[in-house]
Amino acid sequence: MRANKATRREFLVGLGGAALGIGLSGVTGLLTAHSQEKPGTPELPWPYAKLDPVAAAERAYEAYYKGGCMFGVFEGIVGELRAKVGAPYTALPTQFAIYGKAGVAGWGTLCGALNGAAAAVYLVVPPKDGDLIIDEIYTWYGQTGLPDYKPKSPKFQIAPSVSGSPLCHVSVTRWCEATGFKALSPERAERCGWLTASVAKYTVEQLNKYADKAFAVAHPIPKEVTTCLACHGKGGVKENVHMSKAVSCTQCHFSLGTKHP
Amino acid sequence: MRANKATRREFLVGLGGAALGIGLSGVTGLLTAHSQEKPGTPELPWPYAKLDPVAAAERAYEAYYKGGCMFGVFEGIVGELRAKVGAPYTALPTQFAIYGKAGVAGWGTLCGALNGAAAAVYLVVPPKDGDLIIDEIYTWYGQTGLPDYKPKSPKFQIAPSVSGSPLCHVSVTRWCEATGFKALSPERAERCGWLTASVAKYTVEQLNKYADKAFAVAHPIPKEVTTCLACHGKGGVKENVHMSKAVSCTQCHFSLGTKHP
Repeated sequence: MRANKATRREFLVGLGGAALGIGLSGVTGLLTAHSQEKPGTPELPWPYAKLDPVAAAERAYEAYYKGGCMFGVFEGIVGELRAKVGAPYTALPTQFAIYGKAGVAGWGTLCGALNGAAAAVYLVVPPKDGDLIIDEIYTWYGQTGLPDYKPKSPKFQIAPSVSGSPLCHVSVTRWCEATGFKALSPERAERCGWLTASVAKYTVEQLNKYADKAFAVAHPIPKEVTTCLACHGKGGVKENVHMSKAVSCTQCHFSLGTKHP
Repeated sequence: MRANKATRREFLVGLGGAALGIGLSGVTGLLTAHSQEKPGTPELPWPYAKLDPVAAAERAYEAYYKGGCMFGVFEGIVGELRAKVGAPYTALPTQFAIYGKAGVAGWGTLCGALNGAAAAVYLVVPPKDGDLIIDEIYTWYGQTGLPDYKPKSPKFQIAPSVSGSPLCHVSVTRWCEATGFKALSPERAERCGWLTASVAKYTVEQLNKYADKAFAVAHPIPKEVTTCLACHGKGGVKENVHMSKAVSCTQCHFSLGTKHP
């Protein structure tokens, strides 16, 4: 486990220093200090304390019905950190993440659960390692029968499906095809609630491993994708794709046309 | 303009109350207050002050080269608010938004500039109105020749293209097709820098109109999309799409097959 307590102590010591300054200058001093970024925002990454993946999943499921999939995962993880670590998480308004619902306000782009997971990862892990954790979550998401977590008080029984994609539109339609439910049905909404819980749980499991210095890639980018990118990616003969990672290219490009080599 | 000063004054009054509490209980009081969320996070939406769209665009362009497209737009807007409004923006670590680069860590999903724009909108506008502003930005993005803002100190001259999609992968490949540049070239990187600036500028223009109670939809969802959704969307005969908004369906579904009605 990382030295989170030490990190937090340093932060609190910093606050104490600010408080001494306030003692000398009074109320106006506090207002000035706040408007001039003192004590200000602690630098990222913020301290991580290992979390209970099931507690995060349950918090995510509950939050999903308040603010959707992105808010669900983000609040599921950050809310647990707020309860366990306190500041600086207490100053973060997780509600802004409601925007990510249904692939951002109904646009069906990136699955909001995955958007929230990536945002939470970057709060507590430096970018280079954060990208490895995001890759693991996104590849797992695309290749696994999901949802794979059943909340303690479910509204319906939900069958899993494999999305083959991190996109909301594709993920939901694949599930509708697999189960026969409609895209705007309460069962589909519940499916996304379970999925939100599943993603929060898997993300916390990866963050816990990272905190134990035991994180490892379990779901590498598949050979189908790296084969396509050998020509279409960096340094390829037709370098026209700004997308270095995917779980499938044929999910969308199911017909390559007669002219493709 | 909305009563932002009143909102901010209320926030500052709140801080003043906390400060008086500190005066009675001393340093321990401040630490306790912070760890118990007093003064805590002001409720969303946070106060918005009308911004200079060009200043936000230039800040976004500069931030793009530090942390990518999502961070660029988010810091472009939130950084301007931090400078103009101060708290509570001073407590928000905008760097977390670096995760959205290249459609989230290179996954080519949602354009990071659009991800950052939506996050910024939800900080300062309630969800229902925020969705209208996001719709306007996303439809404008898909239908307009972009980038349409040239930074004051550009690295290259950049020609525009129309993406037809909010996805990073599609947006970049369309631009590569239009200009002949490679997807990982410095020119493409610069294009995304200009695009980041363009999205920050357009977002601020919409937020300024909203602050003036003058926001109006200029780019509605096209008829092509609403026609498809009449069958595939809510209440349709084949309700299998959880995506109520798009600028084009045929961008990906260019072949409907012989069995489509």
